[in-house]
Amino acid sequence: MHQGFISVLVTAERYRVVGKSVPKIDGGLKVVGAARYVDDVELPNMLYAKILRSRYPHARILRINTEKAWRVPGVRAVVTGYDVQLGRMGILQDHPPLKTGKVRSVRDEVAAVAAETVEAAEEAVEAIEVEYEPLEGVFDPEEAMKPDAPLVHEENRSNIVDLKMRFSTSDSTHLNQVFEKAAAVVSDRYQVHYNNASPLGTMGVVAHYNNLGELTMYTNTQAPFLYRHELGKILGISPSKIRVIQPEIGGAFGRGMDVYPLDPIAAALSMKTRRPVKLVFTREEELQYAPPRQPAIIYMRTAADREGRLLAREARVILDAGAYVSWGPFDGRVMMATTTGLYTVPEVLFEATVVYTNNPYTGTQRGAGNPQITFAIEQQMDALAEELGMDPVEFRIINANKPNTVTPQGLKITTCELRECLRRAAEEIGWRGRGMAGPNRGIGFAAFFHVGGGARVYRSDGCGTVLSVDDFGLVTVITGSTDLGTGSDTAIAQIVAEELGISLEKVRVVNDDASIRPWDVGTHASRATFVAGNSALLAAKKAREILAKAAAEELQTPPENLVFENNTVYDVTNPAKKIEFDKLVRRIHFRQGGSNIVVSVYYDPPTEMQDENWMGNLSAAYVFGAQAALVEVDPETKWVKVLKIVSVHDSGRILNPAAAEGQVHGGVAMGLSYTLYEELVLEQGRVVNAALTDYLLPTALETPVIKTVFVEKPDPAGPFGAKGLGETGCIPTPAAIANAVYDATGKRVKKLPIKPESL
Amino acid sequence: MHQGFISVLVTAERYRVVGKSVPKIDGGLKVVGAARYVDDVELPNMLYAKILRSRYPHARILRINTEKAWRVPGVRAVVTGYDVQLGRMGILQDHPPLKTGKVRSVRDEVAAVAAETVEAAEEAVEAIEVEYEPLEGVFDPEEAMKPDAPLVHEENRSNIVDLKMRFSTSDSTHLNQVFEKAAAVVSDRYQVHYNNASPLGTMGVVAHYNNLGELTMYTNTQAPFLYRHELGKILGISPSKIRVIQPEIGGAFGRGMDVYPLDPIAAALSMKTRRPVKLVFTREEELQYAPPRQPAIIYMRTAADREGRLLAREARVILDAGAYVSWGPFDGRVMMATTTGLYTVPEVLFEATVVYTNNPYTGTQRGAGNPQITFAIEQQMDALAEELGMDPVEFRIINANKPNTVTPQGLKITTCELRECLRRAAEEIGWRGRGMAGPNRGIGFAAFFHVGGGARVYRSDGCGTVLSVDDFGLVTVITGSTDLGTGSDTAIAQIVAEELGISLEKVRVVNDDASIRPWDVGTHASRATFVAGNSALLAAKKAREILAKAAAEELQTPPENLVFENNTVYDVTNPAKKIEFDKLVRRIHFRQGGSNIVVSVYYDPPTEMQDENWMGNLSAAYVFGAQAALVEVDPETKWVKVLKIVSVHDSGRILNPAAAEGQVHGGVAMGLSYTLYEELVLEQGRVVNAALTDYLLPTALETPVIKTVFVEKPDPAGPFGAKGLGETGCIPTPAAIANAVYDATGKRVKKLPIKPESL
Repeated sequence: MHQGFISVLVTAERYRVVGKSVPKIDGGLKVVGAARYVDDVELPNMLYAKILRSRYPHARILRINTEKAWRVPGVRAVVTGYDVQLGRMGILQDHPPLKTGKVRSVRDEVAAVAAETVEAAEEAVEAIEVEYEPLEGVFDPEEAMKPDAPLVHEENRSNIVDLKMRFSTSDSTHLNQVFEKAAAVVSDRYQVHYNNASPLGTMGVVAHYNNLGELTMYTNTQAPFLYRHELGKILGISPSKIRVIQPEIGGAFGRGMDVYPLDPIAAALSMKTRRPVKLVFTREEELQYAPPRQPAIIYMRTAADREGRLLAREARVILDAGAYVSWGPFDGRVMMATTTGLYTVPEVLFEATVVYTNNPYTGTQRGAGNPQITFAIEQQMDALAEELGMDPVEFRIINANKPNTVTPQGLKITTCELRECLRRAAEEIGWRGRGMAGPNRGIGFAAFFHVGGGARVYRSDGCGTVLSVDDFGLVTVITGSTDLGTGSDTAIAQIVAEELGISLEKVRVVNDDASIRPWDVGTHASRATFVAGNSALLAAKKAREILAKAAAEELQTPPENLVFENNTVYDVTNPAKKIEFDKLVRRIHFRQGGSNIVVSVYYDPPTEMQDENWMGNLSAAYVFGAQAALVEVDPETKWVKVLKIVSVHDSGRILNPAAAEGQVHGGVAMGLSYTLYEELVLEQGRVVNAALTDYLLPTALETPVIKTVFVEKPDPAGPFGAKGLGETGCIPTPAAIANAVYDATGKRVKKLPIKPESL
Repeated sequence: MHQGFISVLVTAERYRVVGKSVPKIDGGLKVVGAARYVDDVELPNMLYAKILRSRYPHARILRINTEKAWRVPGVRAVVTGYDVQLGRMGILQDHPPLKTGKVRSVRDEVAAVAAETVEAAEEAVEAIEVEYEPLEGVFDPEEAMKPDAPLVHEENRSNIVDLKMRFSTSDSTHLNQVFEKAAAVVSDRYQVHYNNASPLGTMGVVAHYNNLGELTMYTNTQAPFLYRHELGKILGISPSKIRVIQPEIGGAFGRGMDVYPLDPIAAALSMKTRRPVKLVFTREEELQYAPPRQPAIIYMRTAADREGRLLAREARVILDAGAYVSWGPFDGRVMMATTTGLYTVPEVLFEATVVYTNNPYTGTQRGAGNPQITFAIEQQMDALAEELGMDPVEFRIINANKPNTVTPQGLKITTCELRECLRRAAEEIGWRGRGMAGPNRGIGFAAFFHVGGGARVYRSDGCGTVLSVDDFGLVTVITGSTDLGTGSDTAIAQIVAEELGISLEKVRVVNDDASIRPWDVGTHASRATFVAGNSALLAAKKAREILAKAAAEELQTPPENLVFENNTVYDVTNPAKKIEFDKLVRRIHFRQGGSNIVVSVYYDPPTEMQDENWMGNLSAAYVFGAQAALVEVDPETKWVKVLKIVSVHDSGRILNPAAAEGQVHGGVAMGLSYTLYEELVLEQGRVVNAALTDYLLPTALETPVIKTVFVEKPDPAGPFGAKGLGETGCIPTPAAIANAVYDATGKRVKKLPIKPESL
């Protein structure tokens, strides 16, 4: 339910386009149904592909016979790992797109077919005969760590993946001493589960390889440039020969960060047939085969002194990668940053162990490990406050991060309004103290900490912009950045319109073809508005300089007197001296020695890759906030109903309040859903509830009143002061609800989702 | 027949990519049939349009009844000028896309239909009932100039168009005195005819207007940016809302310079239906309705002194515009430049009168008036030489233009190898003097003079380039320029590859979408390689600077020591110090504070718009050359057979000899065809031979041996010394053949085409 939002402005500056609630610039196209997603791509002569997956979670492949599949009318290609040469996928290069020798999960791709119709492809896939020798599987990561566990990758001689993430401020002996001497300690085991990102648009690709050796991929990837690079390696062709086109993207939430087997498989089928090949998941396939959120087992303890100051925090996390390593296990990095950085904690230790099992391999999802670890951290904060007899809000405020501080890992916190966020959350939820929410009701709190100025996990975290102005004043911004549906293109347009003093409809954002647009690392880590926005702002400033120089000549006034506003440039000392924006552009272009206005910039945030000791300031800004949840627990059924969520955000200046509120609503709903509803139920590594009838997603009826508060302290590094916001809505929600459930019932839930049976 | 080419190099510099015969970079796509032309554009939900044209060359429209057309199944829209509001077209704004009140030619568009199929559209067009009151027409431009002639546009009170072009070096009295005192004078009336450009790809458009008010036009225009501007004015929408996409273009030859009625009509039908509408001419429609080459009646006299020095030239030209003014009459400007500028003539007068008739309106075509006027000029040169008893080649050499001179109109000739070209032509054809070619054979010569460094007929003659380098060393050149099929994209790629020392396959040229590419005035006047090439070269130099700075750091050497060659940058003083091009790019990108490489430039040639007195240096370079034709005239049938053409060109440095030779071959074939075969036969303003069975185009069998000679004197203003070449092959051919026919038969042919009956 929409309750509007509150903005707490910590600055006096106001703008004309920035900070206004404007409709998304791509909204019109979507509203009229004219937006085209990957499943809408129809190319002449197109084939349809289907994949045959393993019958067993762990087995040797003895024989594949595709003969009957070839005989199905309309079949144009059948491929297996035995007849196409594809490189391995992933950072660890542990993942062949088409499996040979053995299968390691029921998702494993054994063969694929391209046919004239979907039906023929389905029929052919079913006609493929595969003979397996089933092997014992391992589905519990703690079991998998045991020396006698069945090996998922025999050649490794262990299921423990060579991806240990460890950071500590001091040695174990010292840390143990801190815990022993502390006034209060809480220690527990938490467990978070698998869920599916469930974007409206399912995973899909249309691959088209032509006779000149050029491959065009229509894809809903989040990172077209890394995708192109990876795919080139897998296919053994130069990435320069791959054109990546992104139609409109119907949500992604982290699911589109990697190259997945369907991509090289579709490409291989197109290379065989020289025809376009479409491979788009059905909803059932999406639930079964799209990478789910990284599950985790978290052993955590936290210590505080008598005055309520945090002394130490320790987290040992086990991450089940599934059968191969995709982006999921890298959630450990975010877990580490939050373990070491949320609140001021002098002594910290974080350790993550990544384990292979015969489960589905995992991906990253909105928040990227942060909802998972915050579930543990913020329940411990709640328990510690109780143990110390302190108000949980007060306890958090005492320990809250402060501006201009550095976390143990070297993250440089500049702006930080966490204390104000906590106060606002308490005020808006009507907090009066523990047990005061009414019968069967409870209120819980949780704070969050996340990157808000990019995240340098690749050698460049930059984004390029090419900005041009046509002779009629239309500004085209070709950005490297991908809008996943979040409204980042609109934010970019607002930034450019503001800087050039033109109306929003005079700005067009283009980013569908990675062979044309400048480079960008991809849309993740809430970075689009910050990084692409800064890039667009730099470009607008560069164009403005050209325009100002010409306007100064034209109006015979020094450039510093010029104001760009209302599609006009005028002299602030004499507003009658003015020239329309579009006329100015034509004056610059249509004269001897004139020029069109096209500028190019590249913005790479001033950040550092983390070193081998996990030290380094990986983001140019950080975001903070707090949520309060009001819940009611039915005393009979133990059914948890969330009545209200207050979500308070320090994301710097809010560029488009309506869109920002939408992001928060979406985030909260996703967090709520993760906490109470969504769960991929696995049996022997197979999702047994792969349909929206069994896999619960909240409707509007399950979604509570959401009150959004923005504490708007402009960040000096952000475009017009903005920081990231895309993910944070969902980060504290599981913890806030769990704390509210505790307030209502006295029962701590350490395992997600929260179900009546655990109460 | 292919005889190879000769290159006469007037420079010692040699390059690695430039100057080499390389296949066209778009050749592969065309060879495998994967290139998509406008007729290949298929959009979901597309409609097909047909136009109803006037039954009479001149008539009042009394009544249009579209009722029956609406009843044809599948019809989705029927429009007439009475129910859609469209602005007028053309520089004189004399042309409504859909006619109301009256029709002025049989091409006049009266109504149009969009339907689910072409057949339904045809049926519906035939079902439209139009009642006319026929009016007396005028089809002869000299008749049309008479005061009592029927008026094509009554409101003008005259058929003489307000477009007089006149230039003279002195007053008529003085000029007449010069002619009177001259040792030799020739004076005559010449007449040149209508022909069709006959590109493989017919005129066509797919228009798609969407619910957001955005119009996409897939078109084979030559000038997408002017097209967008004009079309916006006609449709009454901002050009910024129009996206112009150019699929591959199957030739144009000047036919695509304007917006034509089919463009706004298709747009109007799409605006009515909100569906894509395709309107592509059949070959019959192309022959009937595409703008033909500008015909002309030329009254010319030339005078020389006893030593064979030209004294004066005077041309009075009548140009039949047809019913409306499109680009055709502007051929007068080129005729003027050649009349005043070809050979050194101290006294010149040129005057063109443009006249409305009820004939088809005219367009411009390869050479743009130059083949027409050269037909007169070079026959008079031949006749004058004879009158003076001089060798025609010697006579031409005496009068030939020289480098670093200025023509009476202020055209600044820099490089000029005309004398060498004439000598080579004589040598290669085996010239031994008049009447020495053998029985029934003759040899004729003609020289030419044309712009070769752009032609400033618009407020900017510029072209923008955006050049980017991907992380794998692929250079993408987004050019404003359109490749009409001539190979200009390949020339651009060669220029960039040369400058960056990379192989040609590492360069990709992109120019299909005018909403992305930088501005360019359009491809005409042989300007693409010169102007877009210079623009691309500037961009490559800018990128090279960035690369050199980084390489200098990397290799610890001063930038001036660096050589870019073989996809490597190395230190010329120590070639072991080197770095691969692609690796260098990654070094620049993937570091802290790194950047992608994307540069933007705009090149506008240093030229002048001509002033009201037709003075001004409109091109940055001029091209010269000469042709010699060897013909045989059957003494019985008088059929003229051209046995050999020697075509000698001073186009500066030749960037791609094979492609350049192809351009010359095409030009010569087109000139030959214009001279002997092609003729649109008009009866009462209607083309009566609108089919390739009746409209003669030469096949390989009719095409003579063509010997191409390039006199390669690099021009300092051109990219690597290149000047324009696209049009010149066809300019001197009619005159050369006519002079050869005279040498063979003693008969001067003053009217084109040369037919047996005129001999």
